[in-house]
Amino acid sequence: MPGLTIGDTIPNLQVESTHGVIKLHDFLSSSWTILFSHPGDFTPVCTTELGKMAAYAPEFEKRGVKLLGLSCDDVVSHVEWIKDVEAFTPGSKVTYPIISDPNREVIKQLNMVEPDEKDHSGNTVPSRALHIVGPDLKIKLSFLYPASTGRNMDEVMRVVESLQRAAKHKVATPANWKPGDPVVISPSVSNEEAKKMFPQGYEAPDLPSGKDYLRFTHVD
Amino acid sequence: MPGLTIGDTIPNLQVESTHGVIKLHDFLSSSWTILFSHPGDFTPVCTTELGKMAAYAPEFEKRGVKLLGLSCDDVVSHVEWIKDVEAFTPGSKVTYPIISDPNREVIKQLNMVEPDEKDHSGNTVPSRALHIVGPDLKIKLSFLYPASTGRNMDEVMRVVESLQRAAKHKVATPANWKPGDPVVISPSVSNEEAKKMFPQGYEAPDLPSGKDYLRFTHVD
Repeated sequence: MPGLTIGDTIPNLQVESTHGVIKLHDFLSSSWTILFSHPGDFTPVCTTELGKMAAYAPEFEKRGVKLLGLSCDDVVSHVEWIKDVEAFTPGSKVTYPIISDPNREVIKQLNMVEPDEKDHSGNTVPSRALHIVGPDLKIKLSFLYPASTGRNMDEVMRVVESLQRAAKHKVATPANWKPGDPVVISPSVSNEEAKKMFPQGYEAPDLPSGKDYLRFTHVD
Repeated sequence: MPGLTIGDTIPNLQVESTHGVIKLHDFLSSSWTILFSHPGDFTPVCTTELGKMAAYAPEFEKRGVKLLGLSCDDVVSHVEWIKDVEAFTPGSKVTYPIISDPNREVIKQLNMVEPDEKDHSGNTVPSRALHIVGPDLKIKLSFLYPASTGRNMDEVMRVVESLQRAAKHKVATPANWKPGDPVVISPSVSNEEAKKMFPQGYEAPDLPSGKDYLRFTHVD
């Protein structure tokens, strides 16, 4: 399924990884997962990214979020390379599995192909794709970055916090929101319902239209 | 072309907008463009997002980046709603065009469909998709966020800065990079070439593998 996008179910592929064979649905079910690909082992941006991901892993774990890496290198390469990753980001431990996809089957099915770069042998490589997958095995949010742009783990953490609040309450998070900032009440909630659902109250700024769709409240 | 993703060329659609009829290739060619969709006018997160986008617009313009919004509401609705957007984000002016796609044709072709929400009439709505399109009309980077998660314009600005540096120099930006931080030299550049290409020099930290693929330098 090329073009896999938000709302789609991750296919139940069986993959090789640094933690042995994984059936994706077994790994993904009943928790949130950050599934992220990198163009190649022993390359610069990837080394910084996997180290940062390892450094943030305890914070993701606190939020019930698993990590799952992926590139087309073999498992032996991953294991050797992890030494560089951990050395470059002191204190980090790569305890999450990294998938090995030498046949480029997984990256095609998961919409993680880099359009502009090839490896030394002219083979396709993964982009810096990152899918946040819900406990229902569906993609909730995706970043598709090219090889040249390392991801921002603070933004990944921010959207995890947003997705989890929206899964728990009938709220959404405004532009540039950070945890602690007010959230907005979903348009599907009437004012009557909102008063019951959010006993802490809400504020609706005056707008030229006179409509009150913009309702701010606080949730944990 | 459902599943439009990074590396793909934006189709040359003719669209209606608050600035009249636009042929996408005419609009997109010879500059960078941020093409972003929102679920609906007169809804909370979108109001905060379009205001922030307007507030950041002068900074995008300095970098040669145009903005182009999109939802399925009609142009009359967009024009009325802009008053709310500007009132909620004081000082912002929505000077960029917003596409109107009442038939849901454009959002399907641009991979901007929200999987989980419908409007009051049960029609499909756009997700919070955002494609950064290069002067060659190709998608360089995409964010696909659900209706519940407002985008972060600081992250959008960060990746624009990264993409533009990578287009100008043979460099990439590491995880969590911000303008002013060191960048890394592309693996395709040999050490010999790097010395000529980056007369300012570069630093390569010692790694357990003994390899020197991680080379940091500074560029504007």
